[in-house]
Order: sequence, then structure tokens, then C-alpha cells
Amino acid sequence: MLYFDNASTTKISKVSLDAYISESESFYNPSSLYAPSSEIKKEIENTRAYILKRFKAKAGSTFIFTGSATESNNAVLHSCITRKDKKYIFSAGEHSSIYETAKYYKEQGYNIVFVPLNANGSVDSEALLNALDDNVAFVSIIHVSNETGAINDIKSIVKDIKTYNKNILVHSDGVQAVGKLDINLNDLGVDYYTISAHKINGPKGIGGLFITNPNKYKPLLHGGGQEMSLRSSTENTPAIKAFKIAIENIKIKDYTEHKKAIIDNLSGDYILVSDDHCVDNIISICFKDVRGETIAHMLEIQGYLVGTGSACNSKAGYNRVLETIVPKGYVGGAIRLSYGEDIGIKDCIDVAKALSTAVKEYTERIKR
Amino acid sequence: MLYFDNASTTKISKVSLDAYISESESFYNPSSLYAPSSEIKKEIENTRAYILKRFKAKAGSTFIFTGSATESNNAVLHSCITRKDKKYIFSAGEHSSIYETAKYYKEQGYNIVFVPLNANGSVDSEALLNALDDNVAFVSIIHVSNETGAINDIKSIVKDIKTYNKNILVHSDGVQAVGKLDINLNDLGVDYYTISAHKINGPKGIGGLFITNPNKYKPLLHGGGQEMSLRSSTENTPAIKAFKIAIENIKIKDYTEHKKAIIDNLSGDYILVSDDHCVDNIISICFKDVRGETIAHMLEIQGYLVGTGSACNSKAGYNRVLETIVPKGYVGGAIRLSYGEDIGIKDCIDVAKALSTAVKEYTERIKR
Repeated sequence: MLYFDNASTTKISKVSLDAYISESESFYNPSSLYAPSSEIKKEIENTRAYILKRFKAKAGSTFIFTGSATESNNAVLHSCITRKDKKYIFSAGEHSSIYETAKYYKEQGYNIVFVPLNANGSVDSEALLNALDDNVAFVSIIHVSNETGAINDIKSIVKDIKTYNKNILVHSDGVQAVGKLDINLNDLGVDYYTISAHKINGPKGIGGLFITNPNKYKPLLHGGGQEMSLRSSTENTPAIKAFKIAIENIKIKDYTEHKKAIIDNLSGDYILVSDDHCVDNIISICFKDVRGETIAHMLEIQGYLVGTGSACNSKAGYNRVLETIVPKGYVGGAIRLSYGEDIGIKDCIDVAKALSTAVKEYTERIKR
Repeated sequence: MLYFDNASTTKISKVSLDAYISESESFYNPSSLYAPSSEIKKEIENTRAYILKRFKAKAGSTFIFTGSATESNNAVLHSCITRKDKKYIFSAGEHSSIYETAKYYKEQGYNIVFVPLNANGSVDSEALLNALDDNVAFVSIIHVSNETGAINDIKSIVKDIKTYNKNILVHSDGVQAVGKLDINLNDLGVDYYTISAHKINGPKGIGGLFITNPNKYKPLLHGGGQEMSLRSSTENTPAIKAFKIAIENIKIKDYTEHKKAIIDNLSGDYILVSDDHCVDNIISICFKDVRGETIAHMLEIQGYLVGTGSACNSKAGYNRVLETIVPKGYVGGAIRLSYGEDIGIKDCIDVAKALSTAVKEYTERIKR
């Protein structure tokens, strides 16, 4: 099977799994008082320091380990959405763990505003700036769209927001950006940034959150006071170790030729949502008048696992993000191709040809 | 090193780790639409059904996988503490993930009441019944105390509460009960029940929550709608598989002789907090006028890792639970011995003797 759904989840690498296994041996509770626990505790703190440095976090920032990016995203909103007289802004292209959480707050009576997207799935930055007013307290914009690969220019967005009012807090969900872009948080200027391990060949069940001003942070999980009292729960030490190894092993690869190979071999009536301002290893293509699920299934039989959009969107039964940017008749035929280093140029040519053929067959079949 | 701090965390068993490793190979996102994902999804549902059956959950109940017992406990309170005109009751002996969360809601202006404990750390059930009134909406009582091993008679407590008002929801934190008592949730009659994997030789980073009435449950984490929309987040499939294996491998062992061996070999001025109504593999002993940390350190040098109380309490700098039940002068000298099947009777005799000798030496030293 050729795996073209890397944006959904990645396979844990051997080095990361080995790290998980080795740390499972040092099983002591890091919060206990004996020496073997202190050593584990020290290793966790070293890992935290490494991650802060690796992503060039602003001085004074901290980083907490969470159970997932979904938890990180929920936690940021829990910390920042606190007043009904304030306004909270999101792009319409946020991951469901931000979007659904924002909707939940909206139902609770908070002033939540969703800003529309450009044709490639990035946020319409003019609309974003127009939405700013004196009541805005918080903005969350995804760094790289999990649906289209569109890169939001977070640095410029943050600059504009902070110029308008430096007290507005800005969060970015970097789950699809890590491993694809070189992340410099100091340069981006965000107050909060979410990352995840299982999208960069680390284990499932662990994510993280960068927090620029820990004193202003209001924890989601209360209890034993782990993670500097910012996230209680027994530290998941094997996963922390494995996460570190996954980060150390990030290799940012150039996928320009892969993307070109796919595009050059597509045929039929389609809209290529992912333009040049997208990462090269997430490609969203919408075919006219076909069912994406059926096409995906036809490709699966031929040995290609492809997405029809975000797995975290699969239960919704429709594609919330693409619906706002793609003309009717094309949304249902969405196919998302995303890939890592196990996929070669020839694989890209093959999947694009297979995809085009499947769409052609499907179209001819329904015409009959 | 002989490990006498099993209540803090347990080592992942070989079978559980093997299950984790094997499931890491089936890395696909369970929410994706292709066949390998559907198979993983099916396995998760089978595991859920197994756990519901294994713990004899009430018909109509469900079980969700969470990132930890701390998350489960926070989630229950998030779901149930919703109205400022209602009253919410807790024992003073709750785990910090309940206690600190309840305190957080108290600070938000909710009516939170803590009920005192008996001398062994169990809840004073008369005081609990006296605290009931027409405003009470929710009660949470730990099943087995993580500090003293005291068993709360949840069945009888639930019966009394439901007799008073059947609409009061009852939660029990079963983290220290699972693996020590045979759990029959239908018999206990609770509405919510929390369990954890890393206390029963399963992996860290995964817990669970039984929910009797899913329709009344308000999720803590929003997003992709995983876990029947009750807990969003990409399913941690390797940990779920490893959790299942840990549950399948639970062997409830009789530790009566272990406990007797320890008690028979204790000397000095101490209070044995853990009486006959406690599980036999968590023993809390409070020595007069000694520093528990120092004693624990003296034992560590001799090859015994013992606790001075819950690791999740270690940051507080004092023992919140023991303080309410043990006379002043004894609280600081708390030692918690907890153990699993790798500890034999001779080890128990040895640790009790070593403990008594250490206390004697300490006492003589400070007298000089």
C-alpha cells in the first residue's frame, strides 16, 4: 500500500518507538522523591529546554506536554476565552479541535467571529484586519491548513494584529507546519503555539503547547500540579522521550518535484485548491460531480491510500473548509494527497494517473 | 531496588508493552475511511465493549478512552458542575485531580462542599448524608484512597444518596481500586467511574471514564468527534491496545500476609492509618516527630523505594489528606508502602524492620 494520507497521521519511526520502549523501563513516577524519579524529572526538564530552544521560543516562554494537539487547542481556548464582553477571532479554516471548541463557546454566549478564507484555504488577511476592534482579546489562526496545505503568513498576521493592539493574544496551531516548515517562534511572534508528535513520526497520545506568558495561562487540567502546575497529570515519560526523538529527527524535505509530478499527471475537470502558497506535500484537488469517497475506494483497491479531507472532519459528513472556497459540484469530489519521505516521484506520477483514470471511469459509469 | 511505591505508578508489563509495539505498526488514523483504518476502528470498538463487560457496566453505559485519570476526573466535573444554585459534594480524601478541580470551581463561585474523613481515610458517611439537601446535584467519592488504601463502600453510599434523591449524579475515582478489588459497576450503582492504565501495569498517558448516561454528558475536549463525540482527539490506538491487555492480565492477589508481615515488624511510636477496612497493598504509617522524606531517603540507600504519600500530592509540601485524620506531630512522618506481585513476604518483613530501624536512628540522632 502506498500511503498518501500523511497529514492524517504518520507511522511512528523506529527510533521514536525505541525511545518509547527504553523509557518504559524507567517507569518511576517523575513526581516521586527518590533518585530514579529525580533523574526522569531532570530528563523531562532537559527535553522541555531542548524543545523551547529547537523552536526558538521567545525568552520567558515555557512549553507543556499535553495528551494531544486537540487538548492543546482546547486548553488555549479555555485559557483565553473568559469574558463575554470581549471578541474572539478565528479563521474559517481552523482544525476541528479549534473550530468546534470555538463553536461550543459561541453556544455559551461568547462573541466568536470566523473570518473567511482565500481560494487556497489560507485566511483572508484583509477580512481578518477588518474584524479587529477594541473588544478583540484573542485570535487563533492555523499555521498550515490540514485540508489544503495553505501556509498562513503568521509572522505578518501577528505583526498586523499587535500593531493594532499589542494586548491581543495570538495562537497558532502548528500541527501541520512542524516537519514541513522551519519554525522560529520568536520570529512568528505568537503567544501560543500547538504541536503534535504523531504527525512527525512520533507516538500518538502526546502533544504540546508553547506558552509565552505562563503567568497569564489558566490550566485546563487541575490536579497534582505537574508541568509547573500548568497541566496536571502523571507525566507520560515514554511518550515525552519518543516525542523528543521525533523532533530531533525532523528532516525538512523539498517536495516541489513531487507536487509537480502529481499536478502534471492530473486530468479531468478539477480545481487544484492547493496553489503555490501551500506546502508541497499536502495537495487538495476537487473533481467535478464525483464522490470523493468512491474515488478513494477505487484507488485503495489499486494500492493507494488517499484522503478525502481531514480525518478529524470525517464524521461531519461534509467538508466544512472546502465548502467555503470551492464551487458547488466540486466539494464532494475532494481528494487530499499528503505524503512523507517513503513516497517517490514515480509514486506521485502513478497516483495522479490512477486518480485521473478513476475519476474518468466513475464519470463514464454514472453517465450510462 | 525493591519497589514499595506501586500506588504511585507501576511498571508496564511485557505483554502490555508488546501490545503497544504491535499496534504502533497499525498506525493508520482510525477515523480515516480506508479499510486498514476501519479495522483499527473495529478493534477499538471491540475493546470498548470488552471493558464495559469486564467491569459489568450498567446497560446503556458507555466507556471513553481519555489521556489519563486526571483528564477523566476533570472531565466529569466539567460535565456535572454547571449551575451556581446547585451544591456539589466531595470527600476530603479525593485524589488531587478531583480535589484541586473542585477547589477551582469553588473559586469560580460554585457551591462546593468537602465532607470529612474517618481515621483510616475513608469518607465519614454520616457526615456525607448530613450534607445532602435539595440543592445537591453531584457527589464524587474515591473508591480506594490513594493515600491510605481505605475502601469506601461505594455501593452503600450510592444507595443512600439515590434513596435521598435519585437524580443526584455520583462519580467514583476507581484508579486505586482496579486491580485490587473486583469491580462490578452495575452493583456499585455509580453514574461515572474513572480508571487508569499505568496503575495496573499498562502504559502511561491513557485512562478511561465510564458514563452511564451518555446523553447527559458534556465533553471536555471538542474537535474531530472521536469517541462518539464524547472525547475528541486522534485515538491513541497503541495505548488502547496495551490498556486492554493490562486489564485482561489483572490478577487480584491476596496481600493479607504481606500486610501482616509489615505490621508485625514495625516498632517505634507510630499510628497505623491503614486499618482492616483498607486494601492490603497500600499501608500508610505515621511516625511521631520524624521527617518522612528523610526516612524515605535512608531506606532508599538500603535499596527500598517507598513513598511519603501520593506523588500527586508531592508538590503541595504537606499531606492534605493525612493532616485531617492524624494528630499533629505524626503527619510529617508519613510513610506509604504499596506493592505488587514482585514483592514477597520476606521483602515486607525486611522493609518494616529497615523502616523501624531508620526511624529509631533518626530519633536518636535528633535527640543528640
